[in-house]
Amino acid sequence: MRRFIVVGHRAVTSADFNLSDLSSSAGRLDILARAVSASFFLSHGIRKDVVLYLLLLGEPSPPKSLRFVGSDLKYLNPDERSTAALIRNALSKCGGEEKVEWLRSTPGISISTKNLKCILEECKPSTFYYLKESGYDFKEVNLSQDSTFVLGDDSDLNEEEEKILDFFNPTVLSLGPLSLHKEHCITLVHNKMDREHIQH
Amino acid sequence: MRRFIVVGHRAVTSADFNLSDLSSSAGRLDILARAVSASFFLSHGIRKDVVLYLLLLGEPSPPKSLRFVGSDLKYLNPDERSTAALIRNALSKCGGEEKVEWLRSTPGISISTKNLKCILEECKPSTFYYLKESGYDFKEVNLSQDSTFVLGDDSDLNEEEEKILDFFNPTVLSLGPLSLHKEHCITLVHNKMDREHIQH
Repeated sequence: MRRFIVVGHRAVTSADFNLSDLSSSAGRLDILARAVSASFFLSHGIRKDVVLYLLLLGEPSPPKSLRFVGSDLKYLNPDERSTAALIRNALSKCGGEEKVEWLRSTPGISISTKNLKCILEECKPSTFYYLKESGYDFKEVNLSQDSTFVLGDDSDLNEEEEKILDFFNPTVLSLGPLSLHKEHCITLVHNKMDREHIQH
Repeated sequence: MRRFIVVGHRAVTSADFNLSDLSSSAGRLDILARAVSASFFLSHGIRKDVVLYLLLLGEPSPPKSLRFVGSDLKYLNPDERSTAALIRNALSKCGGEEKVEWLRSTPGISISTKNLKCILEECKPSTFYYLKESGYDFKEVNLSQDSTFVLGDDSDLNEEEEKILDFFNPTVLSLGPLSLHKEHCITLVHNKMDREHIQH
């Protein structure tokens, strides 16, 4: 199983946002939508062996966490707008109340108020990796088949989040000499995992 | 210089399309918008050493070709919608008339009625690569620093297009064991080029 956790520090936590303005008023929800696409899409299908968590930490009611399970997903298209519509639909089902357990929104997509620590706990046991520029070159590391990769949005995790992650003993990995968008990082991880774990 | 040519077989060739429906009525223009983003965006900037050509072959007036020059680009954002708006803006400046030469639309973006052969000629002299599943594993190939990579949209080039490309002696490259979206292919090529040609 490949798991990705993407932390959206400013991503809106209510359904009250405009699908035509994802990058600004929705708190860079465009980044998270592209992370969904990079996590699941193959040329002619969906990666079934992937679970993606989006942690939304923007206003008005953080945290909200979304879980996408590849083996159950339906109605997912690769464009940002339709993915953001699925996120909005999930947010509309998780109003002000505390919903700590996962609440199913559409097939394969659930929402809760779990925070980073809860999500990391849910990913145990697996090998944890934190994707950050200062890490080891990932080309030199054999990635575990049962892995959890943690990423920020347009910035890395903050100090407090890194402290929480440290309890899970992550290997810190760098993907190359330049600083990349997070959806591009997911694509690179998939390609390396495909090469290591899938027969040609 | 890194050049990418992406052939959009159904991509709309007039400005008369809806930015909220890129994947359907605009003939998978969402794929081309994501190719733009994958070609140019770093975490905190634009790749200056990249030129991207989009060849639009859908109705009503093919071919239309767009050229994006990294060193001149302004007003580019990573989300699909705003990129599609730049494409629409360019299309609105290239009406029914024959405009074989490049016509500047916004900084770094030009439009013409050049076809695949004309675009390939413009990329000479460089080493040509055709990204296709049946090719050599690209991990085993040292990519030239002055390269042109040719890709389809959600399908490969058709037989006629492949014949035209053959005149430029492309090396056919495969990127991994699974069939990937074209924007993901661009990300993988960039990472390999970064590793081979940029000092840490």
